[in-house]
Amino acid sequence: MSLEREEPTHFGAGPAQLPTEVLQQAAKDLLNYNNLGLGIGEISHRSKDATQIIESSKQNLKELMNIPDTHEVFFMQGGGTTGFSSLATNLAAAYVGKTGQIANAGYLVTGSWSLKSFQEAKRLHVPCEIIFNSKDFNDEGKFVDIPDESLWEDRVKGKKFSYVYLCENETVHGIEWNQLPKCIVDDPNIELVADLSSDILSRKIDVSKYGVIMAGAQKNIGLAGLTLYIIKKSILTNIEKVDDTLLHEFDIPVTPIAFDYPTVVKNNSAYNTIPIFTLHVMNLVFEHLIKKGGVEAQEKENDAKAKILYDILDAYPNFYNLPVKPNARSRMNVVFTLKKEGLDEKFLKDAAERKLTGLKGHRSVGGFRASIYNALTLASVEKLVQFIKDFAVENQ
Amino acid sequence: MSLEREEPTHFGAGPAQLPTEVLQQAAKDLLNYNNLGLGIGEISHRSKDATQIIESSKQNLKELMNIPDTHEVFFMQGGGTTGFSSLATNLAAAYVGKTGQIANAGYLVTGSWSLKSFQEAKRLHVPCEIIFNSKDFNDEGKFVDIPDESLWEDRVKGKKFSYVYLCENETVHGIEWNQLPKCIVDDPNIELVADLSSDILSRKIDVSKYGVIMAGAQKNIGLAGLTLYIIKKSILTNIEKVDDTLLHEFDIPVTPIAFDYPTVVKNNSAYNTIPIFTLHVMNLVFEHLIKKGGVEAQEKENDAKAKILYDILDAYPNFYNLPVKPNARSRMNVVFTLKKEGLDEKFLKDAAERKLTGLKGHRSVGGFRASIYNALTLASVEKLVQFIKDFAVENQ
Repeated sequence: MSLEREEPTHFGAGPAQLPTEVLQQAAKDLLNYNNLGLGIGEISHRSKDATQIIESSKQNLKELMNIPDTHEVFFMQGGGTTGFSSLATNLAAAYVGKTGQIANAGYLVTGSWSLKSFQEAKRLHVPCEIIFNSKDFNDEGKFVDIPDESLWEDRVKGKKFSYVYLCENETVHGIEWNQLPKCIVDDPNIELVADLSSDILSRKIDVSKYGVIMAGAQKNIGLAGLTLYIIKKSILTNIEKVDDTLLHEFDIPVTPIAFDYPTVVKNNSAYNTIPIFTLHVMNLVFEHLIKKGGVEAQEKENDAKAKILYDILDAYPNFYNLPVKPNARSRMNVVFTLKKEGLDEKFLKDAAERKLTGLKGHRSVGGFRASIYNALTLASVEKLVQFIKDFAVENQ
Repeated sequence: MSLEREEPTHFGAGPAQLPTEVLQQAAKDLLNYNNLGLGIGEISHRSKDATQIIESSKQNLKELMNIPDTHEVFFMQGGGTTGFSSLATNLAAAYVGKTGQIANAGYLVTGSWSLKSFQEAKRLHVPCEIIFNSKDFNDEGKFVDIPDESLWEDRVKGKKFSYVYLCENETVHGIEWNQLPKCIVDDPNIELVADLSSDILSRKIDVSKYGVIMAGAQKNIGLAGLTLYIIKKSILTNIEKVDDTLLHEFDIPVTPIAFDYPTVVKNNSAYNTIPIFTLHVMNLVFEHLIKKGGVEAQEKENDAKAKILYDILDAYPNFYNLPVKPNARSRMNVVFTLKKEGLDEKFLKDAAERKLTGLKGHRSVGGFRASIYNALTLASVEKLVQFIKDFAVENQ
């Protein structure tokens, strides 16, 4: 049975392409891991081999992201959506633990994922408010940019928040925070909670600025079904200070046990059965990235990929439309439309003939979206660039 | 790269051994599914291929379990522990939707898993009570049997419960309900909610008797990280009748959105990103079982496996001890201890020399446990039987 394949050029937004050598190793390990005579998915999550994978994943991530000792790493089942729920209830509890009071969580809404996360906090009766919705800051009433800090910092300064939430990269609309808002990270009383599901390990970040980082695996780091968390240890301590009775008095919901951060950390991510195969794939992605030169090398490649793609789209301003304002353009999801009507299907068909797939835009936005996560090589993006050029020349 | 392996003889309680041909196919599909040039874990969960896997898994399960039209099948991230939480809040909501009132959920506690499930409902502030704890019905004060219905049916008859919960097979203690309690299944006002994580598809059952069946994948049906649910459609309708404000008035927690059963069903198990590789493995297990002759053939083999294993242990009553009373013995997890002290390590070492692994008992019980789920062949169990006999003869 062959495990060879031609390098795919799939630009889907996720679950996304993974490095072929990672999948080949994972496929082998699915049948026989470490010469155990047994596959990696068939062993106890409390066995020596499983524990070693958990430890190794933590260590590799700490090395890749330069995670300080003030922060802890853990893994949980689920994805971003389960993260929206667990972040809201755990962080609300942490604030009660720290202050003996409640306060609203503040959400910076820049696209549909941050909006969904806010809606989930509200649905669960976690006190929360929208600090700004970027739709309100442009004439189009759309998610097309991130308003300058000067326009909304007054809504933050001097106020108390249980935490402030943002989604670093909005995959649907192709919008990315190119730098963190200073009024949040410079305020020592605010814990920044960030969804990095679609840009984790794509560029260097300063972990010390975050209270919690949450990232679903299925874009840059693995298969669907697993989420990684990096959390400030003091937040864990604050959650532990609160007993369920106190939470109940404050009308804040108790987090389901499998998603209670202190419980998961105390049990080294194996309170319940961690999907060890999925974690192993994630760890293979980490090892692959370390071998490639780490996040620094990856960032350089990602910048180059995004540059040539935006450059070619910008080069045909009468043919391609880029809805997102330049300062908020995502380096991971490049969203564009055709100015001429009636060509959309042809674009996808012609692309598919060159084996360029996954380019259809999200159903709520339309047009096209090229997702260029870590596993997409510069050579693959160059093929797409060539096609975008050829298509414009042939059809304009 | 070889995907061959010697048939393992691993008796771990889970994550457990899977059929080798299932893993071989899964390994191939991890790199290139259906000649897409892309692996099954790399495609959108809303793509045609992913949808086809979801539909096929549902159909295959319906065929295997003869699921009536009154019931719906869906899949969710997580395992049993996430199930404990989501069952409690969804079913409490369903009762409010049906009756406009609240009532306690009733738990039949026969081992540590049903106890954990009760504790989670309580922790989440879902109204609940223990109908019986089997520890209270024997002199040892241990989980070693299931009390006869006549001893506890008075606690059920004429009373109202939002649902009644049981765990069909307790993996830690090796205790199994060999038939469902009549006082529960014959009461049309009671919804039976059952955890079948460790005995699903191991024997024929009458699905119409259950309100909800929940089963984590990692014992009989696949890899960790996915749980299947079979639910009476009327329960879904009842949950939908309740809005969050009413729930809040009744002080019942809102279920996190990724675990809200009606939302998941309406979105065909893809409200959030379903771990499609893990579901594919589950579906391959279903197909493998259909080819083997379905649940009927599997049940016959499982009965034979359990019989020869218990028979050989019973044949050496001075050497082996079987803590569980015969009428509650599990056909999936055979728990035993050695009467002589100081031989435990030797037992495991000698077994390992014959490549018989995973036999150590749960840390809370000690001794040994042979888990003989569907993927363990009769031939593998015969090897274990031979070893158990030889060990007794050599060491008694």
